[in-house]
Amino acid sequence: MDAIEKLTAIFSRFPGIGPRQAGRFVQFLLRSSPSIRRDIAESIRELGASVFECPECKRFHAGEKNTCSLCANPSRDNSLLAVVATDADLSALERSGTFHGRYFVLGGTISLSSDKANGLRIKELVSSLQERLKKGLNEIILAFPANPEGDATAARVKEELQEFSVKVTTLGRGLSTGSELEYADPETLKNALASRR
Amino acid sequence: MDAIEKLTAIFSRFPGIGPRQAGRFVQFLLRSSPSIRRDIAESIRELGASVFECPECKRFHAGEKNTCSLCANPSRDNSLLAVVATDADLSALERSGTFHGRYFVLGGTISLSSDKANGLRIKELVSSLQERLKKGLNEIILAFPANPEGDATAARVKEELQEFSVKVTTLGRGLSTGSELEYADPETLKNALASRR
Amino acid sequence: MDAIEKLTAIFSRFPGIGPRQAGRFVQFLLRSSPSIRRDIAESIRELGASVFECPECKRFHAGEKNTCSLCANPSRDNSLLAVVATDADLSALERSGTFHGRYFVLGGTISLSSDKANGLRIKELVSSLQERLKKGLNEIILAFPANPEGDATAARVKEELQEFSVKVTTLGRGLSTGSELEYADPETLKNALASRR
Amino acid sequence: MDAIEKLTAIFSRFPGIGPRQAGRFVQFLLRSSPSIRRDIAESIRELGASVFECPECKRFHAGEKNTCSLCANPSRDNSLLAVVATDADLSALERSGTFHGRYFVLGGTISLSSDKANGLRIKELVSSLQERLKKGLNEIILAFPANPEGDATAARVKEELQEFSVKVTTLGRGLSTGSELEYADPETLKNALASRR
Repeated sequence: MDAIEKLTAIFSRFPGIGPRQAGRFVQFLLRSSPSIRRDIAESIRELGASVFECPECKRFHAGEKNTCSLCANPSRDNSLLAVVATDADLSALERSGTFHGRYFVLGGTISLSSDKANGLRIKELVSSLQERLKKGLNEIILAFPANPEGDATAARVKEELQEFSVKVTTLGRGLSTGSELEYADPETLKNALASRR
Repeated sequence: MDAIEKLTAIFSRFPGIGPRQAGRFVQFLLRSSPSIRRDIAESIRELGASVFECPECKRFHAGEKNTCSLCANPSRDNSLLAVVATDADLSALERSGTFHGRYFVLGGTISLSSDKANGLRIKELVSSLQERLKKGLNEIILAFPANPEGDATAARVKEELQEFSVKVTTLGRGLSTGSELEYADPETLKNALASRR
Repeated sequence: MDAIEKLTAIFSRFPGIGPRQAGRFVQFLLRSSPSIRRDIAESIRELGASVFECPECKRFHAGEKNTCSLCANPSRDNSLLAVVATDADLSALERSGTFHGRYFVLGGTISLSSDKANGLRIKELVSSLQERLKKGLNEIILAFPANPEGDATAARVKEELQEFSVKVTTLGRGLSTGSELEYADPETLKNALASRR
Repeated sequence: MDAIEKLTAIFSRFPGIGPRQAGRFVQFLLRSSPSIRRDIAESIRELGASVFECPECKRFHAGEKNTCSLCANPSRDNSLLAVVATDADLSALERSGTFHGRYFVLGGTISLSSDKANGLRIKELVSSLQERLKKGLNEIILAFPANPEGDATAARVKEELQEFSVKVTTLGRGLSTGSELEYADPETLKNALASRR
């Protein structure tokens, strides 16, 4: 395997990238100047050195200190903890501008094919609770996607949280922006009726 | 304009049909037997004779009596009234199997470009309320699509219902089935957080 | 089955129409005035009375005489005959403005699942050739779609035409407008190379 | 701009990648092990050291020698030269398995907005012809995409080749695999008729 093929194979493992687009990436790099390629290589190599996993919420961040800016912010609401699947979900919630509590990134959702929770930070979540409860936590919001994997993950996490005297909620279901009744699935209509206000 | 062109023009006015598909419909009819064409023509012509607009919910139905089977059903819950935009939305709610109250078809939503409520049966809804309240109505659910037109319609209808002592609700908003947080709009996330349970 | 359901079932058999869009057609007709419905019904019913299958090219037309305007046109080129699958393909060729010969509509392509040529007018084509050859025909262009069904149909028709001393051609293959080499299939590239000019 | 934002910005410049997918690439790298990141960085950095632009066809290749394996192959047909826009187009032609001549990569097509041929290797192509003619070249195939940019590029290159006594051809146009007449544009049908065989 030559250098072009090797790099094409590497890019093919990037999320959502097939061999054809991977090949286009390699051509793009070949047409770029050596200094640009060096810059990209350097940025990738140094990623680990300047990015930390926040010890509290587990998201990746590039702040100077280990603890991320959200977790270090004293004005966030300690009484609320949103447990999310990924860093991207945390960002989405944060962008919505309506959540002011704390976050915890679980690291994914349960795979339904294996029903395994491999790699999910359920234990880390549980072991952090004693400390969070002392600081005033009284509600854990399971903010998972509205799909079977998200539901299975919520069920598993709820089980693990039973021993704690803390309210556990999940995000409300109903019509999302733009939904038309005619095309809505029965489950969504049922939820929209149940949560009418 | 010959007969082929005329029928193509007619089908082009059907919802969602362009001239090309209209032409295909005509070819389909030409390849069908005369008896099939007669049958289709007869079904269209007789539609008005055997289909009635229900005087209570205003939906079209083909029952023997004027009042439709849903409105005539004594076991439906008189305390709940779902106001929907179209017959198709009524069908969707009914298919979901979770609503057992009464229906009223408004006939559409307010067009935002004109802000007109032309053709919507707001007056008919209002004038039917005295009778419905006597029969036990205590909640009107505005079941409109989750888009600006639906919201404008809900606002208008609410205004008209102010004088009545009846609870007026709208369908719950939140994550619909399949929603992923990463792709959800801020409004939906805000609603999902507000309606967490 | 009531009148709404019956008409919905009828529209569901129209090409490309599912039950949901069929239901929308029925709602559209219900909201139309009785005179419009009568007009549509009349147009469908009378389709057979004013539209003829041209005895020469077999396409449907609404001209006054049996023979269509293309076949009756004395200035068309009798030396060329384009055999097409459908009326729509004939129209497409005619719109392209580059073919001035005669047409024959075969009525479809061979279905690969059944390998049957049921309903195709291969015999009618063959039996018309003696007459056409007398009038100067010297090339038959098999203008079928560039897919396996079209290829199978061309092969079958060619077989039937072997006994006649007439040139039989098929439409050229190559890059179609907008094709990019990178995404072209090997067969198309092979044809494009072979037909370079 | 921190390390995550910087790398996200870098990936956003990759062809076809928006900020959201770029962010997903960064998360993917963050979740990968440091050794995998080192490996990727190394592959990108070393790309320039082990990949050469072939001095004859101008494509990038990772062979040991400067001249690529296609140009070095003595059994390729010197009488044919395919001029293509990009390395990817060369690969597509080669994969089709029907071209056995030589290649030349022009480096793109003329941009219609600027009508400039900036960066295209037209001069390099011209200056290589004397040598190629000596080796037996007698046909140059302009294998550009079947779009206005490709056509403009072909016109320009043809102009520059006028002084040479060599046949210049372009790829054949017609129905590409899967084309249906009904949806084909008039230009394609015209070409398909003209190149019938």
